[in-house]
Amino acid sequence: MRKFFEYNWQIRDEWFDWCKQITTEQLNKKRIGGVGSILYTLFHITEVEYSWVRGIQGKEDIVFKFSDYDTLEKVKLLSDELRNEITNFLKTEFYTLKDEFVSVPWDKDKYKKDEILKHIIAHEIHHIGQLSVWSRELKLAPVQANFIGRQFNFI
Amino acid sequence: MRKFFEYNWQIRDEWFDWCKQITTEQLNKKRIGGVGSILYTLFHITEVEYSWVRGIQGKEDIVFKFSDYDTLEKVKLLSDELRNEITNFLKTEFYTLKDEFVSVPWDKDKYKKDEILKHIIAHEIHHIGQLSVWSRELKLAPVQANFIGRQFNFI
Repeated sequence: MRKFFEYNWQIRDEWFDWCKQITTEQLNKKRIGGVGSILYTLFHITEVEYSWVRGIQGKEDIVFKFSDYDTLEKVKLLSDELRNEITNFLKTEFYTLKDEFVSVPWDKDKYKKDEILKHIIAHEIHHIGQLSVWSRELKLAPVQANFIGRQFNFI
Repeated sequence: MRKFFEYNWQIRDEWFDWCKQITTEQLNKKRIGGVGSILYTLFHITEVEYSWVRGIQGKEDIVFKFSDYDTLEKVKLLSDELRNEITNFLKTEFYTLKDEFVSVPWDKDKYKKDEILKHIIAHEIHHIGQLSVWSRELKLAPVQANFIGRQFNFI
């Protein structure tokens, strides 16, 4: 499971790099499907992951407003910052707790912590698939998304 | 890990149902990104999953030609058929073997069996994200892809 997080983070960072080749207008352009723009997608996967991980830990939700993170640099910084906290959680607490149920402020149902981790993983991969279509619309090759052949080290 | 397979299969079946509302022309239309058409995507995730699972087992690859499975019904039947074999494998053999390395006919590198399973999982979720964009282009709501809130039973 932790390898999937590392996979998502590698791919996310490659998309951050990929974004450097396009204009601010292209980055923010409202596109069909998903959550809208390329930049908003990167913001969305970053903050959704963090909200759920805080939820698993029974911590209060912190709401990030996109208007405060409306450049590539700001979203990348946010992603790096939140990742540190998530890495600590995954390394230490998570594996003793995964069969517990938890409730989060934005959902009426209770979910098993393990189920939430899988939800976070699938959520990001799904949105990355959407970016890949939009990149082809821009006539650019998307980030290569294979899981095999990657090196996973830090978790 | 096995829950991710069941997740992918539920979503895939919901996409097969979703496809019933569109025309054969829409199903086969060449679209931007991914592997092309909606139907070819469903064929592709089905046969790629099966090839890797056979590869993990050291079995010879079976190549399916899309021209033999060029209708929604045929791809759905193929998916159902191959799924039975994969389910048996996941239920019985896999968990004793996951740290072994294996080579497959279509790739020069060796991969850990566990890594291949994760590759299969991410591969399908990624392509499903692409379908979700194409569905919005058709002004149709995509299949809901949340992992949480689903019931997993049969594996």
